Amino acid sequence: MKILGIETSTFSGSVSVSDDEALLCEYVFNTGPRHNEVLVPTIERLLSDCELKKEDLDAVCVSTGPGSFTSLRIGVSTAKALCYSLGTDLAGVPSLQVLASNVTWSGNDICVMTNAGRGEVFFSFYDSESKTMTDAEIVDPESVCAGIEKKTVFVGSGALMHAELIRENLGKNAALLPENLNAPRASGCALLGRRKILSGKKDDPFTLTPFYLRRSAAERKAASPERQ
Amino acid sequence: MKILGIETSTFSGSVSVSDDEALLCEYVFNTGPRHNEVLVPTIERLLSDCELKKEDLDAVCVSTGPGSFTSLRIGVSTAKALCYSLGTDLAGVPSLQVLASNVTWSGNDICVMTNAGRGEVFFSFYDSESKTMTDAEIVDPESVCAGIEKKTVFVGSGALMHAELIRENLGKNAALLPENLNAPRASGCALLGRRKILSGKKDDPFTLTPFYLRRSAAERKAASPERQ
Repeated sequence: MKILGIETSTFSGSVSVSDDEALLCEYVFNTGPRHNEVLVPTIERLLSDCELKKEDLDAVCVSTGPGSFTSLRIGVSTAKALCYSLGTDLAGVPSLQVLASNVTWSGNDICVMTNAGRGEVFFSFYDSESKTMTDAEIVDPESVCAGIEKKTVFVGSGALMHAELIRENLGKNAALLPENLNAPRASGCALLGRRKILSGKKDDPFTLTPFYLRRSAAERKAASPERQ
Repeated sequence: MKILGIETSTFSGSVSVSDDEALLCEYVFNTGPRHNEVLVPTIERLLSDCELKKEDLDAVCVSTGPGSFTSLRIGVSTAKALCYSLGTDLAGVPSLQVLASNVTWSGNDICVMTNAGRGEVFFSFYDSESKTMTDAEIVDPESVCAGIEKKTVFVGSGALMHAELIRENLGKNAALLPENLNAPRASGCALLGRRKILSGKKDDPFTLTPFYLRRSAAERKAASPERQ
């Protein structure tokens, strides 16, 4: 199964091409909010490097959020349009699960934190024993730390941003990653999406929507009683 | 410090651009032995995506082996030529250390294994307690497993190739990674090389050589008494 992975839930982004579980190529860019400009040319470039045509793709797997409003919209819209045009399968994968997949092999509990702005983080907790993940929520990083009592791996841009606070609160119970391992990888999204498709749970390109957790600035403004 | 990372020790390869510890962009390709064709255009592409010129680079960090003869030569030659031309700093980093850096954060012992052909692996062991790494050697994967008695993380193409053997021999003591985390990352090479440069141990573009462990087929043939 030839799979295109798209991950645009943060200010960085990533595109990958895989053949079943094997990674053929992957690009990670952290070059500012230029997803709209970068995404389609990057897809074309990667397919060409793999000597594949877009028509060779069997599936597109995309990270659905929570995360940055605009970049999620760009990623999910692109994935849906590709699947609609090419007739390939589509799988949406929660962004925080994509990040957790960088470290699930370790057997430790995992705390996924990405920057949600306003001093808050998108947060989800992966319990290595029950092997389940909590639903994503928006919280302040202090209250995340307050609930942790055993060795936990932190992953994501929020973990990077609040590394000092995490270290102060948890000492040796906190495992922090080097900077280059805190980016979500499209190849991780592709592995998880492939599993979803193989279990018969593919998504519909007409109805898949990004998962925001928080309303956009425009929606908040529209709903405000002070709006003129 | 703007750093170009080059990793070509295996049949896959990787190029990255970092700003100090921050990853700006990274490309991983596993598209067959095409390093010579792919490497320089990829470097140019990544620099352009980061809106950098080659003259903006402060350092080039390159993976020095052990690994695939030809691709190591291409990577190291390219890095040396860039540093010679541009006057940037150069740091060579052992390939197995680059791979270990994918997982050193976990606090477990680490067994790095890459495919050395002929049923053997390039092998190095990273002891999480003494935090030192053994010298690279070529061994058969069975004897690697025979020496392991506690939980160990396996990383690299050799670990992927011999996953079944490792699982059979070590059961729950073996932590194996999903396929996409077994590729060496140029960004890991850049992080390690940067540390080397900051500690005053940069390499000389006139004298840095790849580290092979095994003679090339051509050298073996030349040294053979059966040679005509």
